Amino acid sequence: MSRPAIQPEIDVTRARRETPGAERVLHFNNAGAALTPTPVLEALYGHLRAEAEMGGYEAADAAAPQHLRAYEAIAELLGCETEEIALVENATRAWDMAFYAMPFNSGDRILTGEAAYVSNYLAYLHVARATGAVVEVVPSDADGQISLEALRTELRRQPVALVGLTHVPTNGGLVNPAEEVGKLTREAGVPFLLDACQSAGQWPLNVDALGCDMLSVTGRKYLRGPRGTGFLYVRKGMIERLDPPFLDMRAASWTARNEYEIHPTARRFENWESYVAGQIALGVAVDYALEWGIEPIRKRVVHLATTLRSALSEMPGVQVRDIGRQKCGIVTFTVDGREPSDLQNELSARGVNVSVTERSSSRIDMEARNLQSMVRASVHYYNTEDEVARFVSEVAALSH
Amino acid sequence: MSRPAIQPEIDVTRARRETPGAERVLHFNNAGAALTPTPVLEALYGHLRAEAEMGGYEAADAAAPQHLRAYEAIAELLGCETEEIALVENATRAWDMAFYAMPFNSGDRILTGEAAYVSNYLAYLHVARATGAVVEVVPSDADGQISLEALRTELRRQPVALVGLTHVPTNGGLVNPAEEVGKLTREAGVPFLLDACQSAGQWPLNVDALGCDMLSVTGRKYLRGPRGTGFLYVRKGMIERLDPPFLDMRAASWTARNEYEIHPTARRFENWESYVAGQIALGVAVDYALEWGIEPIRKRVVHLATTLRSALSEMPGVQVRDIGRQKCGIVTFTVDGREPSDLQNELSARGVNVSVTERSSSRIDMEARNLQSMVRASVHYYNTEDEVARFVSEVAALSH
Repeated sequence: MSRPAIQPEIDVTRARRETPGAERVLHFNNAGAALTPTPVLEALYGHLRAEAEMGGYEAADAAAPQHLRAYEAIAELLGCETEEIALVENATRAWDMAFYAMPFNSGDRILTGEAAYVSNYLAYLHVARATGAVVEVVPSDADGQISLEALRTELRRQPVALVGLTHVPTNGGLVNPAEEVGKLTREAGVPFLLDACQSAGQWPLNVDALGCDMLSVTGRKYLRGPRGTGFLYVRKGMIERLDPPFLDMRAASWTARNEYEIHPTARRFENWESYVAGQIALGVAVDYALEWGIEPIRKRVVHLATTLRSALSEMPGVQVRDIGRQKCGIVTFTVDGREPSDLQNELSARGVNVSVTERSSSRIDMEARNLQSMVRASVHYYNTEDEVARFVSEVAALSH
Repeated sequence: MSRPAIQPEIDVTRARRETPGAERVLHFNNAGAALTPTPVLEALYGHLRAEAEMGGYEAADAAAPQHLRAYEAIAELLGCETEEIALVENATRAWDMAFYAMPFNSGDRILTGEAAYVSNYLAYLHVARATGAVVEVVPSDADGQISLEALRTELRRQPVALVGLTHVPTNGGLVNPAEEVGKLTREAGVPFLLDACQSAGQWPLNVDALGCDMLSVTGRKYLRGPRGTGFLYVRKGMIERLDPPFLDMRAASWTARNEYEIHPTARRFENWESYVAGQIALGVAVDYALEWGIEPIRKRVVHLATTLRSALSEMPGVQVRDIGRQKCGIVTFTVDGREPSDLQNELSARGVNVSVTERSSSRIDMEARNLQSMVRASVHYYNTEDEVARFVSEVAALSH
């Protein structure tokens, strides 16, 4: 698929026409799961129907080129090779297959940032308890992003076994400076695992520019793919250093009674039994995002989020809680005297989708900022300026 | 849902009317992935459509009762409690979450049978290499099932850390005597992990009768559920002895900055990001199977497979390769002078689905029997006597 050299602005009318949910709901929960566009749904339903009519494996054989295309599209998205991509069930399992494959020893330091996502941090603690590795949180700078100065200092103290970073945290609007982190980890020769679960589809992700060795993504968020899909990128030189936490007949070959060979590519992180329809549809979702262009998407997402943030911040009683130098499509806020979960329910009754983010989802950041919970409104390129205006007036109505 | 006390015979006409693929293809690849029935497809498409129209999380909230029903239906199928069930991506990942959670020490013995499935055996070898545990294969008896006498002897030699058994092997027709194995492991006080991937949906599976402590199942095979679904059963007293190989925000709670609590139920083996539509549809598939009745299904499957086995065994040049005292819906055979993969392709061109099973899928059994590969024809209750007859004549035409 060839992309135009100069990408036009997003044709929002077309984007909404191709989004069956767009006229039914005001969906500002794109960081939860975005509304899926028609081409993705057609690929999904089409393959599920083929499975029911031909048989599951028979349909997969017939759709082998589309399945392969998923790897190619993702490789194009990330600027890597298809052999560096594993298709798995979701971002957490992608991240797990890389993280739990790392060989940690007692005293090894795992560095992360204040905005670390709950599931990643639980895994750090889990592995630390099992191996004696130590989890250290690099402080944020005055803007709220990971402090590059502090990271540089910590990287000088050895042994650092891993830097794990949440690119776009679950809340707070922040885009962490992953490229700068990647420069530092490369200089230090330390593996860098980037959780790109919430950046993929709204932010450029070139793995060479990012300097990451491993990167995990989900299908359901800004990529607008199906739930139950995700992928892992592992840099070529890194793959064979990782002993996958699980082995099965896809990840390895049973070569003799008591012998096996682990697959030399990122396939070692996959497993045989797959949600093939979802994986094919994920490929279509990535192609669809590439067709719009990640940079035009980013621009529009940032434009809408900035408009929303600015309008909310002018409202009495509303506190916008976003941090960071670079901000993405996620807008978090609280309303004085109102429980975020009540606001979510009341907005829902008005046909408006948001989510609520709790302290336990990013405990270190939330404790540092003395926050218990917030409303999270996350916009995508198919959302409109009118929706932003309507959202603001709904929040105003609920704030009094 | 109440079931009739005396279950009638299968109404094959209705079963086929409710199977969109039944008139399009002669599907004898039910042990690969069965043809999905209409109620399962409707649940699947219905929820995917709701996700596209309402948002992914919003649709999941609205379908919470149906999602819960999946746990209840599975608990009914297995005769266990919902808290003993984890919904995961497939049987391999279900099995992995239990197996890799076991604490193995150097010298611990893992006992399995000759028919061990490739993915399980690879995991045994993988863990043995990492921990110093030892994998031992209990020989088969004269009928080809695991020798209960040999198992009894091996269980007396300590330390046995685990008995892992493939209930219905990938090929060979065999149903291993799981209940008798369960009696022996209970007497010996040794944990018993049963791979019921191919028995679920065609064979009764009461976990108390089976005496297993852990059991793994896929959705796509005899249960006729979607690809990308599976579940794990772990007995109540066993759950808290297992430290899950991965932790995330569904499996554990982040209770303080450096503290977490692992969920006390089988939820500790799940993960947050789910293929909710598939899981709901899996629940419908289990209810659908329960509605027909597992015993009527078993009877019809055995009847069709026995008819097929018997007809094939009378054909010149055809060797039926099935073993075991109890045989299920899987029929494996070779044709003199013909490559199984060629036969599969030629049958496929005639609208007949089978699969080919290679030595590397169950190496110990296949080597013992000096087999390289076989054709696997697996029947289900919606298949007909006419299809068996047509299949036999297609094979006859290809055998000359």
